[in-house]
Amino acid sequence: MHSLQFTAESSSNGLLQRDFTVGGVPGVLWSPAHAGGERAPLVLMAHGGGNHKTHPAMAGRARLLVTGCGFHVAVIDAPGHGDRPRTAHDEAEIAELFRARAAGEPEGPIVVRYNDHLAQLAVPEYRATLDALQELPEIGGAGPVGFWGINMGTAIGVPFVAAEPRITAAVFGQHWPDVLAEKAKLITIPIEYDMQWDDEHISREEGLALFDAFASAEKSLHVNSGRHKELPRFEADSAARFFARHLGAAVTASA
Amino acid sequence: MHSLQFTAESSSNGLLQRDFTVGGVPGVLWSPAHAGGERAPLVLMAHGGGNHKTHPAMAGRARLLVTGCGFHVAVIDAPGHGDRPRTAHDEAEIAELFRARAAGEPEGPIVVRYNDHLAQLAVPEYRATLDALQELPEIGGAGPVGFWGINMGTAIGVPFVAAEPRITAAVFGQHWPDVLAEKAKLITIPIEYDMQWDDEHISREEGLALFDAFASAEKSLHVNSGRHKELPRFEADSAARFFARHLGAAVTASA
Repeated sequence: MHSLQFTAESSSNGLLQRDFTVGGVPGVLWSPAHAGGERAPLVLMAHGGGNHKTHPAMAGRARLLVTGCGFHVAVIDAPGHGDRPRTAHDEAEIAELFRARAAGEPEGPIVVRYNDHLAQLAVPEYRATLDALQELPEIGGAGPVGFWGINMGTAIGVPFVAAEPRITAAVFGQHWPDVLAEKAKLITIPIEYDMQWDDEHISREEGLALFDAFASAEKSLHVNSGRHKELPRFEADSAARFFARHLGAAVTASA
Repeated sequence: MHSLQFTAESSSNGLLQRDFTVGGVPGVLWSPAHAGGERAPLVLMAHGGGNHKTHPAMAGRARLLVTGCGFHVAVIDAPGHGDRPRTAHDEAEIAELFRARAAGEPEGPIVVRYNDHLAQLAVPEYRATLDALQELPEIGGAGPVGFWGINMGTAIGVPFVAAEPRITAAVFGQHWPDVLAEKAKLITIPIEYDMQWDDEHISREEGLALFDAFASAEKSLHVNSGRHKELPRFEADSAARFFARHLGAAVTASA
């Protein structure tokens, strides 16, 4: 088993940020700055395609969960993203995506196959990261663990959660059913799923089909008007409340 | 114009409840008990079929909005409901609904036509109630007004809101598009819409079609697993936060 090595530490506004690596994969762990090491639930996050572990969307969600719910929050760079090198395959797929975009061709088939490739690499990395994080005394191995990933974070998260019994609640959204629906059928924990009603890349039928595939007895779909990149900010607040309900924390007004 | 007459008053746990009538229609107004008459936004609610103005669902939602957001909340008995007499037409439609239910026939066609009939009576009553409530100094004529009605409350609310420019945000849910979609196309204010993914009366296609019909630039659909009567309690919390966002109030932890 890979152990976790902290590489940097900083804190601001009640948020302790610790950079780490597990088996060479760089990640970041956010925690309450003044908790005195007391044990609290963990939420694992996965970032979107083209982004990285400390993108403002990640840091903003972490702030909601840490300062609003008292949770620990961790995210790692996906393969080919953030501080990790791109392979020739990464470069070729990204070039193909940009070519399709410039030509006005559908991006879906390229995103689906490239994200599936990345997910196959990332799932064992997430598992190793969770193993290592649960060795920390302030997280531990017995507490509930959430997962939150939209877009590419869903492409990684659905196969990860489908095979990971330690995850007890998950927020997903904005992906295609092609590869993921079969994995979603294996997921029975509570989920919240986001989709955009006017998504120019993912059709309504595709979004609804992936939501429908989850076997969870308790699942919620949040549809909002707007295009792919217009997911409203209040859905992050909703996700934080979802995790508070399922991982067991009181939400303060800031979340 | 009918004026509002208060007929009873009580208060408990920070909630002032005043029964009233407007033009013979009985209603109830909930307000913060210790506000000292200061002006606050109003949310009009409409109850579901077979229920009444002080059904626990109404009182519970009122508590979220009053104690959580500081709003005033009012609801009136629908025609043939609560303290209002049933006509021969009401009795015949209710008997027909029970007959269809016992025979295992679809309830939708009966509910749609009966709710449409009641809505035609109720819309002018809601307008008169709003006129009268806005004469109260603690509500006034200039503030934002919300509308919240699910099931029959949506059948009344959609035509009411479509013709009522004073309503600035609305929560609807769980009805058929047959009669309401044409009215929904006239509505452009922010809405939140609830539907149940496993509704035994309203198909997914029907629920999605009514949500799709709203012309609102900002609209959210909340789908939850479960049957018609299993709308999760946390959707009431979500609706309260929706009104807090749009009518302008800070939500306290209790909402």
